[in-house]
Amino acid sequence: MKIGIIGATGNAGSAIYKVAQQRGLDVTAIVRNAAKAREVLGADANVIEKNAFALTAGDLTKFDYVVNAFATPTAYQHIDLAAKLVRELRENKTTKIIFIIGASSLLKPDGTKLLDSLLQDENAANWIATPIEQAKELTFLKLIDNVEWLAVSPQANFVPGPAAEYQLGVDHLLFNAAGHSIVSTGTMAEALVDQIENPTVPVRTRFTVGDK
Amino acid sequence: MKIGIIGATGNAGSAIYKVAQQRGLDVTAIVRNAAKAREVLGADANVIEKNAFALTAGDLTKFDYVVNAFATPTAYQHIDLAAKLVRELRENKTTKIIFIIGASSLLKPDGTKLLDSLLQDENAANWIATPIEQAKELTFLKLIDNVEWLAVSPQANFVPGPAAEYQLGVDHLLFNAAGHSIVSTGTMAEALVDQIENPTVPVRTRFTVGDK
Repeated sequence: MKIGIIGATGNAGSAIYKVAQQRGLDVTAIVRNAAKAREVLGADANVIEKNAFALTAGDLTKFDYVVNAFATPTAYQHIDLAAKLVRELRENKTTKIIFIIGASSLLKPDGTKLLDSLLQDENAANWIATPIEQAKELTFLKLIDNVEWLAVSPQANFVPGPAAEYQLGVDHLLFNAAGHSIVSTGTMAEALVDQIENPTVPVRTRFTVGDK
Repeated sequence: MKIGIIGATGNAGSAIYKVAQQRGLDVTAIVRNAAKAREVLGADANVIEKNAFALTAGDLTKFDYVVNAFATPTAYQHIDLAAKLVRELRENKTTKIIFIIGASSLLKPDGTKLLDSLLQDENAANWIATPIEQAKELTFLKLIDNVEWLAVSPQANFVPGPAAEYQLGVDHLLFNAAGHSIVSTGTMAEALVDQIENPTVPVRTRFTVGDK
């Protein structure tokens, strides 16, 4: 199983890289800076140094799975990068691509979007662009019917940390035993690599992972 | 006023080119085949020969208006090209871009989408991909808030022919005096160049043009 991770030096990407490596999968970091990747992932890491927006069908289809864990520098680039990767993978049936899209498009128990609550925050202007664009990214992906995509949302709180037991959901926030919507990068990585090794989530859908 | 027309050798694009030229505007055809463009538009036509997917911000921002009249070879490329052009024009406030997006997303008088009726046609499988993707293209454009885009829909019938008097609408099909939803390429071209010279339609909206 060959896996390429775009943005493999970030919190989510590096956790996924490490879990895949521990399980003996053939994993490659696709990053802007190879030296930084080897610092974060180890001197023996498999690295392709390339701007994500320059990736071609040839680069991507070497892999069985591509994971897009890249937190783009500018919020609206979430859509632009998704569109670029989709364009390169059109009509390809063998390479699957998983987009980590944030939690803002998930529904609260009352059926409203988490994004609607975030917009009410008095300091929203400082950080709302990314949740807005990540919600749009899902809307964009739902337009795409000839690429083997999956989208995965973390929880309202997505925090660095080791893996816990996890639960999967579809479009609703998940809550742990203490009532919190939270998932660690370690939990996300385990759940995501589980889906790569033993897929249970239907292609072209979004799922979500939460700590139990 | 500098205008670039992507797909200027097609029915819609060539009509727009000719109207812009007749009005003394500085218009350039952006096409895959310069020789074909000079056959269609005249030996003295201004031509840039470039694949639409290779256009850069530098190419596009030479113009006050870019018109995307390119009927892509594959239906899903409507979204891919829109996303590519959007990406190149992000945060640009001086170059406006007009997408010709088809009529399928327009509403019938009963409030249902024209696309829903088209899907019922017994031969729909032969031609439905383009109306489906053009409707998605509008959904995509509505996600974009930092590009100066406009989308224009023709009518259920979009036919080659000279200009008639026209009417403008927003999201509903328009009907001529004989009760037909129809617009000629000539009418579309006049209305579109009118919007370039004297804009009345708000930026980041879709409008529609019909024969009176």
